[in-house]
Amino acid sequence: MFFGSIRRLSRRNHFDASHLWREIHQSVQRPSFGIAFDIDGVVLRGSSPIDGSSLALKRLYADDGTLKFPFLFLTNGGGIPETKRASELSKLLDVEISTLQVVQGHSPFKGLVSRFENELIVAIGKGEPAEVMSNYGFNNVISMDEYVSFFENIDPLSRYKTWAAGQNSKARTSMKTSNPIDHPHRTRVKAAFIVSDPVDWGRDIQVLCDILRSGGLPGEENGFQPSLFFAADDLEYQAAFPCKRLGMGAFRLALESIFNRISHNPLQYTSFGKPNLVAFKSAEGVLEQLRSMICKESQKEKYGCREVDAFNTLYMIGDNPSVDIIGAEKAGRPWFSILTRTGVFREEGNHSEFPADLVVDSVVEAIDYILKREGV
Amino acid sequence: MFFGSIRRLSRRNHFDASHLWREIHQSVQRPSFGIAFDIDGVVLRGSSPIDGSSLALKRLYADDGTLKFPFLFLTNGGGIPETKRASELSKLLDVEISTLQVVQGHSPFKGLVSRFENELIVAIGKGEPAEVMSNYGFNNVISMDEYVSFFENIDPLSRYKTWAAGQNSKARTSMKTSNPIDHPHRTRVKAAFIVSDPVDWGRDIQVLCDILRSGGLPGEENGFQPSLFFAADDLEYQAAFPCKRLGMGAFRLALESIFNRISHNPLQYTSFGKPNLVAFKSAEGVLEQLRSMICKESQKEKYGCREVDAFNTLYMIGDNPSVDIIGAEKAGRPWFSILTRTGVFREEGNHSEFPADLVVDSVVEAIDYILKREGV
Repeated sequence: MFFGSIRRLSRRNHFDASHLWREIHQSVQRPSFGIAFDIDGVVLRGSSPIDGSSLALKRLYADDGTLKFPFLFLTNGGGIPETKRASELSKLLDVEISTLQVVQGHSPFKGLVSRFENELIVAIGKGEPAEVMSNYGFNNVISMDEYVSFFENIDPLSRYKTWAAGQNSKARTSMKTSNPIDHPHRTRVKAAFIVSDPVDWGRDIQVLCDILRSGGLPGEENGFQPSLFFAADDLEYQAAFPCKRLGMGAFRLALESIFNRISHNPLQYTSFGKPNLVAFKSAEGVLEQLRSMICKESQKEKYGCREVDAFNTLYMIGDNPSVDIIGAEKAGRPWFSILTRTGVFREEGNHSEFPADLVVDSVVEAIDYILKREGV
Repeated sequence: MFFGSIRRLSRRNHFDASHLWREIHQSVQRPSFGIAFDIDGVVLRGSSPIDGSSLALKRLYADDGTLKFPFLFLTNGGGIPETKRASELSKLLDVEISTLQVVQGHSPFKGLVSRFENELIVAIGKGEPAEVMSNYGFNNVISMDEYVSFFENIDPLSRYKTWAAGQNSKARTSMKTSNPIDHPHRTRVKAAFIVSDPVDWGRDIQVLCDILRSGGLPGEENGFQPSLFFAADDLEYQAAFPCKRLGMGAFRLALESIFNRISHNPLQYTSFGKPNLVAFKSAEGVLEQLRSMICKESQKEKYGCREVDAFNTLYMIGDNPSVDIIGAEKAGRPWFSILTRTGVFREEGNHSEFPADLVVDSVVEAIDYILKREGV
């Protein structure tokens, strides 16, 4: 059994995880399991907590509010830096979530910094896509909102969109935080990153086609296709509306079907996020870090808590069979998939095509099951 | 030779064509040819006349500004009633264009009034799609902008679109001009009409999927697919930007690829506009009406100008081989296709896949050719 007794830290906007773990001062036992939660349709619906999810999550903390068992959020969502998302989740769910505990669809983009660090790249999607990429270390990132402002008439429907001005001002701020490029319309775009769900599909598909078939300079003749990365590939996801909403995978499908019709070469792209193995491997690494923080170096020998101990079980709790469940299954053991009926999946029994290891009605039941199974 | 000498009519916003023809009082000879012009990429680029197009069009009028040879605009564009488009074109091109001379992509929707007159239908696209449909005689039409306002959370990205408010106020006006339905969200949508280029692709694809797979009631279970009509199916068209822009056909492709992935049954739809035969047959009928107006009843016997005379040649002047040229070719004789190099097509020689009967540099050259060939 694990008995945490770290003092409860005051709520902060940018929660510093290391601070939490540094204060561990009592005996701990190295947990042999970790949990990855999907967010939308599992703990939140839109921006409202799903019934009981906040209380259920609290069971993973000690009485004083400090983390007891390693868990994180593994989401295909995004559009804001992980620090902000952690702070937002902490407020909505009324538990302390550290930045480390947030693995978003675009988190693996960090791994591409060495390749595109000083190249001109375009960041697409809702929220603050350019700020996200800037924070990862990309020096010449421009948001699509800002990029299009350099090309007159690139979007013939722009005059029907009175919102453009509002978005551009935000985008400009992101440009200033990185190295601004004076003439992005005369500089070849080397890669486009779909960081979060695109807002203006028509414009984004149009300008992506322009960038991708011209070799990175809209208006030019055909050229070698710049790289294209998607933070996720969900066809649909569960939000506040009763029926599933179209996700980034649907946008990718729309772009691909059009690009392949107007271009000589088929669209080349890479998708991250669940159900790709990279998302689960990344989660595994973070859960290990979290466990190490819980189990202080000084206590390892005393309690036989050694770095080499592998997790016995890693639970993936999700609502989407074709994203969360198939992903966990493909990642293999120690992943154990739990499907909730609070989001995309609502049927009796198990999913026919991608059956989970366990199906439960809600995240409350899932956590109950895990804690009983683990005897904690 | 035809010598018109009708007095020049003063410019009016809603130009009354019949008035023009009633005033014909001189001898006329029945023209044996008619001309259909595409608009975008042939006479206009964006909202600017293409070099010389206005002067070239003036050659189809008598010195006093009255129509001498029957011609019309056959465009896949739209989104505003034909009366308004005629008035707009008159101003831009500095010639008198009557409502009759404007055949838009959605003009054939008039033929569907008897089928959907009192059913709830949704009108989609830029401009005033609900007003267009209302003017045709549909009594229960609602614009997509207005329709979505009845469904909370139907578009999870709406909070990133500050423009929604502005569009809705316009849409509401359109509702008032027809028979308003108190509860469109509880009434089954019987048909969706893509009247003009959709502005908000993501939302429109989402809500069309909701309507089409639920049997007309978003949020409901699967049902029989309501009818779906597109005013046109252009994959690309030439606007003010140097490269072609994505058109309604691209939107259809995006919708279809997504719908077919999430629905059990493939998308059923009907497209109007060029290159469909219906567009050319419709143009033929209108050109005949225009000719009849030029050639007054009283003068028929005198000049052997009989109703039964068929046109010897109907010229289609367009910039898009896969829309204008293939359409005219399929329509067969008396259609004669002329491809200009001012829009989608820019190559030397003829188009390899859909060769035109004649290729010219501009509409100026096209009119010059026609008038010489016809000996007028």
